[in-house]
Amino acid sequence: MSSRNSKHAVGIDFGGTSTKLALVGEQGTILARARISTRKLTSRADWFDAVESGVEQLRVKGKKDLFGTGFCGMGVGVPGFVDFKRGYVHDLPNVPGWAGVHLAKDLEERFNVRAYIDNDVNAMALGECTFGTGRLYEHAVFITMGTGVGGGLLIHNQLYRGAHSMAGEIGHMPVKMDGGRSPLGRGALEQYVGNQRIVERAVRAIKKGRVSSILKKAGGDLDAITPKEIAQAATEGDQLGIEIFDFVGDCLATALTGVVYLLQPQVIVIGGGVAQSGEVLFGPLERHLRDRLKPVFAERVAVLPARLGNDAGVIGSATLALLS
Amino acid sequence: MSSRNSKHAVGIDFGGTSTKLALVGEQGTILARARISTRKLTSRADWFDAVESGVEQLRVKGKKDLFGTGFCGMGVGVPGFVDFKRGYVHDLPNVPGWAGVHLAKDLEERFNVRAYIDNDVNAMALGECTFGTGRLYEHAVFITMGTGVGGGLLIHNQLYRGAHSMAGEIGHMPVKMDGGRSPLGRGALEQYVGNQRIVERAVRAIKKGRVSSILKKAGGDLDAITPKEIAQAATEGDQLGIEIFDFVGDCLATALTGVVYLLQPQVIVIGGGVAQSGEVLFGPLERHLRDRLKPVFAERVAVLPARLGNDAGVIGSATLALLS
Repeated sequence: MSSRNSKHAVGIDFGGTSTKLALVGEQGTILARARISTRKLTSRADWFDAVESGVEQLRVKGKKDLFGTGFCGMGVGVPGFVDFKRGYVHDLPNVPGWAGVHLAKDLEERFNVRAYIDNDVNAMALGECTFGTGRLYEHAVFITMGTGVGGGLLIHNQLYRGAHSMAGEIGHMPVKMDGGRSPLGRGALEQYVGNQRIVERAVRAIKKGRVSSILKKAGGDLDAITPKEIAQAATEGDQLGIEIFDFVGDCLATALTGVVYLLQPQVIVIGGGVAQSGEVLFGPLERHLRDRLKPVFAERVAVLPARLGNDAGVIGSATLALLS
Repeated sequence: MSSRNSKHAVGIDFGGTSTKLALVGEQGTILARARISTRKLTSRADWFDAVESGVEQLRVKGKKDLFGTGFCGMGVGVPGFVDFKRGYVHDLPNVPGWAGVHLAKDLEERFNVRAYIDNDVNAMALGECTFGTGRLYEHAVFITMGTGVGGGLLIHNQLYRGAHSMAGEIGHMPVKMDGGRSPLGRGALEQYVGNQRIVERAVRAIKKGRVSSILKKAGGDLDAITPKEIAQAATEGDQLGIEIFDFVGDCLATALTGVVYLLQPQVIVIGGGVAQSGEVLFGPLERHLRDRLKPVFAERVAVLPARLGNDAGVIGSATLALLS
């Protein structure tokens, strides 16, 4: 595919430890990549300087006239609450110094291009729904499973952001009315299926003497267990791993039952690290979802893995500009 | 307000025991009413005959040239699953003989007017969001509490029906992952706050010897207790009544926490019989909702009672035609 005369945009996936940049073509193809370390940056000015060097890399690797003909602008997905319309960052809970920032305006002034910002999961959802699994659907729910559990909603082919750009927080939805408290609320989905919570279930059982191949897969080190080792063990028939993923699938199914009864999407797209576990996650999830939903609803919704993988963030961020 | 030259429509609120009809003006005002008994009707043909007599009453009471200038058509809200676009009734769970009916087409042929059908709660939500509490908002969630618990969603000023006209089933949303099973699923909101469930909580406690003024309000007859007596007792300080409404408010708050995190509406509008309980319901509901939601979400959503009361069904059904 030649992108010489077609549309392109820069997507920026803002992270606390590193920020990824990509030059993305109008079909969602990545034409060039760059990555800047953001762990040691102490000010926003440093971040803008680092982004400028990242954009320069994209220019060298991908397109000398980066901001020339066909350029649609720059999109940034940030890990926190934003006002999409105003291009304003309310707060990034895990990145100090970013509360109350007119990020889109600052980028436009710095680079003299159009800039768009959104919550990172919204950007991923937009990417998946434009170029990935969701592209054939008019109404879709996107969920990403990792350290946190986030979501995005496609309604009538448009990303739905709610009254104040904060909609889609599927990980905050309660699955247990009397569940424990956390900053998310009480008994929230993420309290049971966030990466760390999944790992804790395995560690607790192993410490109690449960026999499992999970520990061996982590080199005998309890601290080295991640959902990946648990998924591998489950795939090979490890009973503890299977039980943990059955529980994760049932928690997800509970929240998604509420989502389906409320919104009746055509498809639920699941992305993020844990979603790459494959059948050990999707099997129990589908089974519990069909057990919890009335057939008339269950028959009308598909559950599919996301396609863009680790590129969902940069592609989705660029999509903010490509679609504008 | 004169409606002589303005728009008007017929709204039909289809119920298993009676069907209400109204002639509704373009400001949502009821210009004439009729009611037909549907309890003893044994066929759909009988229902159409009864509706014809009801429409005739509207003509006599309200407007001699009912189907003349300014007439927008006929709207029907039905208690069940419909395909709005096709005007098709999938199934009315509590009314035998109505599965698989092209109701809009049948009405158009019988009356030679445009006809629209929708789920009854969707119609009520549309009425409330057009002429009632929701009219000032772009994104609203409507919930009706009665025998069942239903819902409707306003998104970008449009009723959102989902992929197959079945969205908005807030009463089916799970609040307890490990809750009991019912045809709705497991631990569904309606399993805890449907009229009968509220009454059961009171009856169970009284049978166990709990002292309460609820029984006296029901004339000493356990079988005569309804949510109304429980609400009255609670309003007067009865401890059992207060506890029951606190529980109902918390169940509602749990489901609505999920709804707010997912959709971030500007307002939640609560209608139906139980919603008329006033402060004994709204007090605990607001308190639990604000306890469960992050402040950044809680501060941005209003919880308000519906305004159209028992007329929500006919006004909403007419609105289907008025807005078309």
